[in-house]
Amino acid sequence: MPDRYPRLRSCLRLIKPYIPGKSREAIARELGLTDIVKLASNENPLGPSPLALEAIGHHCQEIHYYPDSNGYNLREALAKKQGIKKEQIILGNGSDELIGLLTQAYLQPGEEAVTIYPTFSEYEIAVRKAGGTITYFPLERPDFNYNLDVILSHLTEKTRLVFICSPNNPTGTIIPWQKITQFIEKLPAGLLVVLDEAYVEYVADPGYGCSIRLIKQHFPVISLRTFSKIYGLAGLRIGYAIAPEKIISDLNRIRDPFNVNSLAQAAALAALADEQHLKKSLRLVEKGRRQLTQGLAAMGLAPIPSRANFIFLDVGINSQKIFTQLLKKGIIIRSGDIFGFPTFIRVTIGTEQQNHRFLEALAGILK
Amino acid sequence: MPDRYPRLRSCLRLIKPYIPGKSREAIARELGLTDIVKLASNENPLGPSPLALEAIGHHCQEIHYYPDSNGYNLREALAKKQGIKKEQIILGNGSDELIGLLTQAYLQPGEEAVTIYPTFSEYEIAVRKAGGTITYFPLERPDFNYNLDVILSHLTEKTRLVFICSPNNPTGTIIPWQKITQFIEKLPAGLLVVLDEAYVEYVADPGYGCSIRLIKQHFPVISLRTFSKIYGLAGLRIGYAIAPEKIISDLNRIRDPFNVNSLAQAAALAALADEQHLKKSLRLVEKGRRQLTQGLAAMGLAPIPSRANFIFLDVGINSQKIFTQLLKKGIIIRSGDIFGFPTFIRVTIGTEQQNHRFLEALAGILK
Repeated sequence: MPDRYPRLRSCLRLIKPYIPGKSREAIARELGLTDIVKLASNENPLGPSPLALEAIGHHCQEIHYYPDSNGYNLREALAKKQGIKKEQIILGNGSDELIGLLTQAYLQPGEEAVTIYPTFSEYEIAVRKAGGTITYFPLERPDFNYNLDVILSHLTEKTRLVFICSPNNPTGTIIPWQKITQFIEKLPAGLLVVLDEAYVEYVADPGYGCSIRLIKQHFPVISLRTFSKIYGLAGLRIGYAIAPEKIISDLNRIRDPFNVNSLAQAAALAALADEQHLKKSLRLVEKGRRQLTQGLAAMGLAPIPSRANFIFLDVGINSQKIFTQLLKKGIIIRSGDIFGFPTFIRVTIGTEQQNHRFLEALAGILK
Repeated sequence: MPDRYPRLRSCLRLIKPYIPGKSREAIARELGLTDIVKLASNENPLGPSPLALEAIGHHCQEIHYYPDSNGYNLREALAKKQGIKKEQIILGNGSDELIGLLTQAYLQPGEEAVTIYPTFSEYEIAVRKAGGTITYFPLERPDFNYNLDVILSHLTEKTRLVFICSPNNPTGTIIPWQKITQFIEKLPAGLLVVLDEAYVEYVADPGYGCSIRLIKQHFPVISLRTFSKIYGLAGLRIGYAIAPEKIISDLNRIRDPFNVNSLAQAAALAALADEQHLKKSLRLVEKGRRQLTQGLAAMGLAPIPSRANFIFLDVGINSQKIFTQLLKKGIIIRSGDIFGFPTFIRVTIGTEQQNHRFLEALAGILK
């Protein structure tokens, strides 16, 4: 009977599906553990603003109505905060969805995207779904610095999208805003730079946020942002993108009309207003970063200096082993093989207690 | 500067975006009204099961974690309820997303889909996004009956997908299960029948649900279901599909890993267990259908006999006028021009009071 089914399109058959970080529930089920610490998906251990939870409670009474297709209130608030027009903003079911819309909008089969290496694997998946190809340009060791000149010199007539994640997942490194500005000024026509800034709120550098300035100047840039990280709303699925109006209008043409659920819209709106919770979350990460860096140094390990809420480091041995042994102790991290770095691990900065537990467990394993 | 941007793919430029029903909030904003009745999007006026609201409250505390990528608990519950394997189920961000995955999975540019007319407009949008073409086969007047023999005789080597909505939006008519079974048994290889059963819970006919039986027998059928209608969770965005494992595995390969938010998963799981609320919602619709049918008959109007929670009827004049005048009275319906029937309206069956208000307002307008 399988012969009766239509065949999956050939360009889709080779996609390696994204491997999500193990959920606490899945680990609990599989290993029979109860006290589990998840430091695998760069979530905010403090959770969202209490105002967001309040907004969810309030909006539950309207949950039988379809969401606002246009995300009017949230887009208005975001526009005000960033000093742009709401027509320069699109909301997505997480920024994952927006990455998919971008490749669907601009990549013809056979056209190209370029990105750095290592980086977030969803770019490649989305490019392949659109029938395109992706070329990687490695970050420069040992500090994983971006070299955009190399990328610039390798762009072809078929290149449509340049994905740059900054702070980059999994390295935590950022590209200086002067460099990204120069890069974009030199770009040939017909390309769009996708600046994935999921972790931008963790970057204290005052010049950072240059993407908005470039977009206001109508440069071909789209900035992807999310409420899944510092805003603590990963479970609700809401991201957004800022870009020149023409780009946003293209994406709106192909997005599903009710792509963002109404509790996510309400919670994000409330979360956006809570500057205090944002600062608290930021302080937790800054303190935790020092704690982890010092603790790792005591074991002779030197993590890549990170500007985000996670740390990428070489443990010098097959990190799948570290992953498995930490898992047995109820600690979930990401092993670096997923990113092509089999002796690295990526660990989310947690609460002081969570970081402590991770450091102790790792020390025990490496001893 | 717009010349610097990449161009939207040509197959996407002609897409007419879906026009969502006006939200209560938008109407309130635009017309300065407060007491608004929305009978435009076939939502359940009773809202979801109280158990679903409870589940949302409970799961809010975990909202900073990414959702379960596999929807384990909900798929397990659905599988149990339907007597199938959980590998035969995929969850979506509303069934809209699943329609998009289907066209992306199986339609090469230039290939074809077929469907009935009038019907839900998302099929055409999704087909066009994939670069495919869609052919419509009109339902037979006056009762809007399905004629699948005509469809069967028009299938070509390029046809990959057959979209059949039953109960059909906007007509409320259903295809007898014997007919759909015969149709599927006669299908040539390499086609998939997409049976959109968003309103299936409103069909009392005990033979209805034949789609599951066909899927168990490995026929090339996928049944789309949703928690947006009788389950009252439209705002949370959750639908699902049931199909042979091979089809589900294809769709899983291309779905975003965190496509369904965790509150939707939790609420749907709870809603599924509340048979009582389901019965209450069903009774409301059955009673409301009689109320509306009688009230409309008193105005000399004869709606198409509906098996769903909405009614489609010819008002004999340009229904945009009816739409606008009802809107001024705070009542939102859908005008038939959206479906290619400019003298028809589609009205959702509401509570007794809402139905009464609609009937009174319509009588006033038509007088």
